[in-house]
Amino acid sequence: MPTTYAYAARSADTPLAPFEFQRRALRELDVQIEVMYCGVCHSDLHQARNEWKNSIYPVVPGHEIVGRVTHVGSGVTRFKAGDLVGVGCLVDSCRTCPSCAEGLEQYCENGFVGTYNGVDRVSGDITYGGYSTNLVVDEAFVLRVPENLDPAATAPLLCAGITTYSPLRQWGAGPGKKVGIVGLGGLGHMGVKLARAMGAHVVLFTTSASKVEDAKRLGAHEVVISKSPEEMQAHANSFDLIVNTVAAQHDLNPFIALLKRDGTMTLVGAPEHDHPSPQVFGLIMKRRRLAGSLIGGIAETQEMLDFCGQHGITSDIELIPMQKINDAYERMLKSDVKYRFVVDIDSLRQ
Amino acid sequence: MPTTYAYAARSADTPLAPFEFQRRALRELDVQIEVMYCGVCHSDLHQARNEWKNSIYPVVPGHEIVGRVTHVGSGVTRFKAGDLVGVGCLVDSCRTCPSCAEGLEQYCENGFVGTYNGVDRVSGDITYGGYSTNLVVDEAFVLRVPENLDPAATAPLLCAGITTYSPLRQWGAGPGKKVGIVGLGGLGHMGVKLARAMGAHVVLFTTSASKVEDAKRLGAHEVVISKSPEEMQAHANSFDLIVNTVAAQHDLNPFIALLKRDGTMTLVGAPEHDHPSPQVFGLIMKRRRLAGSLIGGIAETQEMLDFCGQHGITSDIELIPMQKINDAYERMLKSDVKYRFVVDIDSLRQ
Ligand SMILES: [Zn+2]
Ligand SMILES: [Zn+2]
Ligand SMILES: [Zn+2]
Ligand SMILES: [Zn+2]
Repeated sequence: MPTTYAYAARSADTPLAPFEFQRRALRELDVQIEVMYCGVCHSDLHQARNEWKNSIYPVVPGHEIVGRVTHVGSGVTRFKAGDLVGVGCLVDSCRTCPSCAEGLEQYCENGFVGTYNGVDRVSGDITYGGYSTNLVVDEAFVLRVPENLDPAATAPLLCAGITTYSPLRQWGAGPGKKVGIVGLGGLGHMGVKLARAMGAHVVLFTTSASKVEDAKRLGAHEVVISKSPEEMQAHANSFDLIVNTVAAQHDLNPFIALLKRDGTMTLVGAPEHDHPSPQVFGLIMKRRRLAGSLIGGIAETQEMLDFCGQHGITSDIELIPMQKINDAYERMLKSDVKYRFVVDIDSLRQ
Repeated sequence: MPTTYAYAARSADTPLAPFEFQRRALRELDVQIEVMYCGVCHSDLHQARNEWKNSIYPVVPGHEIVGRVTHVGSGVTRFKAGDLVGVGCLVDSCRTCPSCAEGLEQYCENGFVGTYNGVDRVSGDITYGGYSTNLVVDEAFVLRVPENLDPAATAPLLCAGITTYSPLRQWGAGPGKKVGIVGLGGLGHMGVKLARAMGAHVVLFTTSASKVEDAKRLGAHEVVISKSPEEMQAHANSFDLIVNTVAAQHDLNPFIALLKRDGTMTLVGAPEHDHPSPQVFGLIMKRRRLAGSLIGGIAETQEMLDFCGQHGITSDIELIPMQKINDAYERMLKSDVKYRFVVDIDSLRQ
């Protein structure tokens, strides 16, 4: 096993810095991957800075990973050296609970193993993510990446893509459905592209008039400035589904009021402080639903990648060398990125 | 048309008192009903006291009505004199919107006409409810009441019954499903009986240890004291559905934590002040849903009455003369009733 070159956070208040380690020797079902690109997710920053109070240092973030298979364990049947593959937020789960049995490993009743800051079920070691030159993952958690897509721009599909794809599928986005996407960031811009490709009528909600043209370019049929009560009112009681990607604390009621009877608003971002309380009346009067959704399972992630391959969908990205990661975090905090940073992992090989 | 004897609120701060008026002459599709019994719903009190700020005085409350048909309009085909019938919360709707077309008149996009404090779509008159000796209602909004049920104890099915029956059906209560009912009042005790008859495993949540035995008598398989973190924890991640009947402001998170993946908690009571904000994390981690539900449509109300006829289900009631209605309101505010007051309308005929 070659030395792995990575970037890691050594503590909550120090910047990410170079870190070298060894990946585990291949187990029977393991796939060894040379990482090419890794997307930069808000979770990376939260964990690097211990904002969820569960970080174990050093933290090597990164769970939007695209690379090529270099070696496989003796029992691996699904992959071979040279395959273009992806790894997302999960690298293992119990595989026996009802959720795992249904292919919903993200909801594993015994807890899934995160791609980083997780605990390996065999060795007990802490997992290290994709800000690194190579990766070893059980084949059951490795995805095929369509060769027709730009691999750098594909990386964000592994978290931002599946996080929006899953609720869109779960709640039936498609022809004849009116779907709202709240927020035009890394998640939101994927939601717009995916919902449009599924055939839904797509409305993007943003607080920023400067994003209107871009939202339309990305596929939104309509853009609503959510600060405008008049613009919001024009869409009252009309949405089948709203996928709300905004993690910052905000009032949910104006969006709930836009759902038609039996409509659902699904939250995919957890705010640091709870949103103001939604009014029960808004739920009762039209049997509306407020829900949450967490990334997606392995089978659904593969379905999403295949769907993106068929429709030519990738993320809009800004490619950076690993040496710029700390700057990228600061810019991400200001939403100063269109729409996802992706690290060129070759920058770790020089 | 005979004179109608009723009780009405003349203002927000005066007790209900005798009131006489004339019902409208029968329209072609109208059914005239001699009211026998009328249940006492919290909504009656809210509207009598203008707590929803939309009362038009005099208010004649009452929307849990059982009586016998005395006359029918020339075009009526579904009812004849002598039929035992019921009227619930709705006496009309637009009948053309998508919700009405689906038999979900309670969600009429143009607003349903309430049994009292509503506006008649033909005359513009304010509707008067079931605290009265007779009633005139379009046959489309009249229900058949099974003759094998005690008519007094059947009256509360028209609001308390359908309000719990509808979400139980909507979210699939039945064999193999674990269903929670929060609160053992007028709504909750019906929820327990109905969920049990549907074949679900029924758990009643109450803050009061004194209600445990009664809940079991009513049909609960288990009773949980919701103030006990230990008792609550024992049911974590296990419920398919929780119907929350408690309108008083309370923390929803401990109940959301009891839902299994894809489980739903449905609120059927709107609090005067919003519940504390639910934590988004609790929704996201198991794709849980928080929903609302409002009474039920006419077809579903008939289905519920037929179901209750087959299973011998009625409300546990305390029968009172109309002259005791103001005392009953005060006792209802203290939850001092097992489990629904029903007015014997003969008390208005003496
Ligand atoms: Zn992520
Ligand atoms: Zn599992
Ligand atoms: Zn009622
Ligand atoms: Zn209607």
